[in-house]
Amino acid sequence: MDGESGAGQAPQVEYLSERLARLLPALDWARGYNGGVLASDLLAAVIVTIMLIPQSLAYALLAGLPAEMGLYASMLPLVAYAVFGTSRTLSVGPVAVASLMTATAVGSIAASGTAGYATAAIAMAMVSGLMLLAMGLLRFGFLANFLSHPVVSGFITASGIIIGLSQLGHILGVQGQGDTIIGLLGSLWRNLADTNAVATAKGITVIVFLFWARKGLAPLLSRCGLRPRAAGMFAKAGPVFAILGTMLASYYWNFGQLGVALVGEVPVGLPALALPSFDIGLWSDLALPALLISIIGFVESVSVGKTLAAKRRQRINPNQELIALGAANVASGISGGFPVTGGFSRSVVNFDAGAETPAAGVFAAVGIGLATLLLTPALYFLPKATLAATIIVAVTSLIDLAVIRRAWHYSRSDFIAVITTILATLLLGIELGVLAGILASVGLQLYKTSRPHIAVVGAVAGTEHFRNVERYNVITHSNIVSLRVDESLYFANASYLEDYIYALIAKMEGLQHVILHCAAVNEIDLSALEALEAINYRLQEQGLTLNLSEVKGPVMDGLRKSEFLQHLSGKVYLTHHQAVADLKQDDIEPYII
Amino acid sequence: MDGESGAGQAPQVEYLSERLARLLPALDWARGYNGGVLASDLLAAVIVTIMLIPQSLAYALLAGLPAEMGLYASMLPLVAYAVFGTSRTLSVGPVAVASLMTATAVGSIAASGTAGYATAAIAMAMVSGLMLLAMGLLRFGFLANFLSHPVVSGFITASGIIIGLSQLGHILGVQGQGDTIIGLLGSLWRNLADTNAVATAKGITVIVFLFWARKGLAPLLSRCGLRPRAAGMFAKAGPVFAILGTMLASYYWNFGQLGVALVGEVPVGLPALALPSFDIGLWSDLALPALLISIIGFVESVSVGKTLAAKRRQRINPNQELIALGAANVASGISGGFPVTGGFSRSVVNFDAGAETPAAGVFAAVGIGLATLLLTPALYFLPKATLAATIIVAVTSLIDLAVIRRAWHYSRSDFIAVITTILATLLLGIELGVLAGILASVGLQLYKTSRPHIAVVGAVAGTEHFRNVERYNVITHSNIVSLRVDESLYFANASYLEDYIYALIAKMEGLQHVILHCAAVNEIDLSALEALEAINYRLQEQGLTLNLSEVKGPVMDGLRKSEFLQHLSGKVYLTHHQAVADLKQDDIEPYII
Repeated sequence: MDGESGAGQAPQVEYLSERLARLLPALDWARGYNGGVLASDLLAAVIVTIMLIPQSLAYALLAGLPAEMGLYASMLPLVAYAVFGTSRTLSVGPVAVASLMTATAVGSIAASGTAGYATAAIAMAMVSGLMLLAMGLLRFGFLANFLSHPVVSGFITASGIIIGLSQLGHILGVQGQGDTIIGLLGSLWRNLADTNAVATAKGITVIVFLFWARKGLAPLLSRCGLRPRAAGMFAKAGPVFAILGTMLASYYWNFGQLGVALVGEVPVGLPALALPSFDIGLWSDLALPALLISIIGFVESVSVGKTLAAKRRQRINPNQELIALGAANVASGISGGFPVTGGFSRSVVNFDAGAETPAAGVFAAVGIGLATLLLTPALYFLPKATLAATIIVAVTSLIDLAVIRRAWHYSRSDFIAVITTILATLLLGIELGVLAGILASVGLQLYKTSRPHIAVVGAVAGTEHFRNVERYNVITHSNIVSLRVDESLYFANASYLEDYIYALIAKMEGLQHVILHCAAVNEIDLSALEALEAINYRLQEQGLTLNLSEVKGPVMDGLRKSEFLQHLSGKVYLTHHQAVADLKQDDIEPYII
Repeated sequence: MDGESGAGQAPQVEYLSERLARLLPALDWARGYNGGVLASDLLAAVIVTIMLIPQSLAYALLAGLPAEMGLYASMLPLVAYAVFGTSRTLSVGPVAVASLMTATAVGSIAASGTAGYATAAIAMAMVSGLMLLAMGLLRFGFLANFLSHPVVSGFITASGIIIGLSQLGHILGVQGQGDTIIGLLGSLWRNLADTNAVATAKGITVIVFLFWARKGLAPLLSRCGLRPRAAGMFAKAGPVFAILGTMLASYYWNFGQLGVALVGEVPVGLPALALPSFDIGLWSDLALPALLISIIGFVESVSVGKTLAAKRRQRINPNQELIALGAANVASGISGGFPVTGGFSRSVVNFDAGAETPAAGVFAAVGIGLATLLLTPALYFLPKATLAATIIVAVTSLIDLAVIRRAWHYSRSDFIAVITTILATLLLGIELGVLAGILASVGLQLYKTSRPHIAVVGAVAGTEHFRNVERYNVITHSNIVSLRVDESLYFANASYLEDYIYALIAKMEGLQHVILHCAAVNEIDLSALEALEAINYRLQEQGLTLNLSEVKGPVMDGLRKSEFLQHLSGKVYLTHHQAVADLKQDDIEPYII
């Protein structure tokens, strides 16, 4: 009876070596590293490097930053994650939602294109990295649980719409800026007259090509004799072909003279390592957006990591992931990058390409480093519209409107949460959107538990089991009312229970005993204990006893510490069946409802 | 099975006449009004009027307002409450905590003593009144439930300490201002040298007299021949004697010349009725403090109302109380008063004096009106230190430090909530204090439910009942693991459940079936449903079936709307007993843990 309830904790025995391996997961996989794994990792790294170059440039553009910062953010962070991360295949770097959040936060501090803007973005990576490290050390990984799936899906869907619209301006060659859907559409509408025909034609061509590449390229390559796996890989490299093609076209036809925006000069060479600007005013301005970007980035990264780990029977550790993402962002901050996190599409490519350990990430970082040394001059002619097109096509896979239908169909409160998140993100911007989503889901949860379902129950014939009198044919006794409270009793529903019981007993005649069936009562807090004492007192005044049944161990431990059991007019029974057997009047026939 | 679960709602049948009576509860008691009730109400009104005069003056002083505003706030609001309120004996007017909150909020907008300060306090009553009315019409009465008892006790205790200290300056005749305990003590310490000996001596005399009057006056009067009930009444009028005594002493010895602060000139006559200043900037500055004062005032008032109603088998309706308090505050706002609510001490006096209907409040309002017409000149000589002393003595009854011990003893999370509230109120001020309390209790509740207690259960011999294997001697079967999840499954604990189950089954051998005992699962939201689908899939891959037992009606309704039941590898059983009977292997002997 008084045994420790160790079963309430996830069972884990921790030895010293496991502890070290947990702090530095790299030790774990480095131990068994061999030639075969090396070959797999190298191949994956080559593929990922090719994929990452256009992606990194595009997300730098989305964040309103110079193209080279996208490359910088794709080097050291990968190395840092390889040392500290627990996922074998997660690929860390600039991702769509975090880049948009960076643009929103930094855009309210400095104008895009200024030195202050880039400085703030770098500082944001640093602040976010330090926050993630702190959360990891404090073991705050559980916080991710408070973002429900519908809220995350809704947020990412709405962000995808905002991102797509924000890139439409680049395609049309006009200004199209704003943090909300109304701002974006308004800005596009006002500037529609300035549309650049060449940019638009090329942008649309690229979009069509990329959508086709997703479905049509792999079969085509297969027919051309490539093996299916290789064909699939090449098809995923659609953006690379688009970039090479438009870069050549831009060079040949001199798009720059036709008013098409080009990426322009990208500095050759690796980033200089330096501590980001420490300005207390800037850091405090960045604190709230950095916290939001940290939480969103963490949730996104952990869900990708979990999905991939499950496919290979591996596990990831949320608290260690916080440390790894923190280290990656600090690394981004000291190497001139911007906030990074684990991305879905880049991780899937890494996984599909056969990466076996995070060493593949280190090799990819080396590949990107070589690219900044050798390939940057060629990027001069790359049209920005091409990058915008790759972003638009990429984010369409983020948009999951089916979640709305699924939530509507399954439960009203999930639906309210997802709709609130989507509308708030579209109409108020991404920061308020995610806050509104969290508040809505937490608020709905509290509201639901504040008005618990309470069922009058009776015995199912032939069993010792009790069920709702309104749903089952059950046996009841007129001198007893059995109430099953379907919720833990705590401050938010304590007075509801009181009112419910008083109203119920007021219309019952011949009643002698009230039995609360407590199988679903997982907690009784101090407010609820006071309510139970009031109920006990009031029933006693009316000549009724209050009894409890099936009270759980942890709840009973709590009641024993109070004086409630001394005051209780009735008894506490192990099972509801025993309670009814003890309290029913033999001279009154039981009746079946 | 598909019956509506009407038992989940407090049963109530509502007829048209009941509806009208609910909107205007005055219709209800006015119908049976007669001479006997009138006599009781008139007697109570005389006693309450005498009590209310010093209280009203004192709380105006506490709010930093001219004395007459305390009287104004004790007239029309009582009439408004009498019309709309559902409590028969609640007395509405200026109270300690709401007056302090007014001082804090208005003090950050204008300097005490200026016309702007009084204007803001009057506007605050109006804004708060309109908010309460809106909350009442929206039936937001349930919101009060989210303030747990420990948080309310902690908040009122800490406010009592702040109020007591804030009055100490008046007793010593020095400046003692601040919103936090550190600010108040610092201010008192710096000004200690300026202590006025006469004010201090008199203040301390009054405090000693008032404390003695509480316990010693009633027996003394009894010995002098008064009947016990009358003696008790007179003893409660201690503050009135203190005020008369010091007023006479002040007049006789000319305290004003000795540097003692006096109330000074109080305008004769009833307040002019006027709409409060409508200034959008002022109203928006007042919005948050007005919301807090509304919620705190409502919670305080409803808990007093409930306590008194329970003594006479009456009931109060929280939504209607919002409307009544809203009307009272609007009435205060248009008659030059400041925020009011139902007070504990004034209501107890009204109740003890035998008030039977809210008409007693109307008569008391008339009494206060006569006082403003006739008695105000006499108040000129009243020392402020006397009023401060009555406040100090009154708030000592608010301070309930025992709640800390009770919470510590009963549950760690209640303790954390109460300590957070008290410390935040003392150190950060009352507005942040109450917000911190609400956040702490809600956050702790979410945190607790995010890491639910999960027990491995077995059958209690001779019953169909299943209990924790670590607490009871129970029968289990080696091919089955029965898990009782002691919490609703929702987004905050969905991934915890997944991790728990995977870790548990990893160390069990010979396992074939997992049964989730769902008696305590009151809800499965969309995130948890996705987690259950993942668990089902993962177990199936390992050759295990997932089964559910004792799933409640409302939860089952939800599952039927999804595709989960089609994918489920095992079955859903009515009772856990049936599940085990069906799934146990007959060739393996059951064993008792």
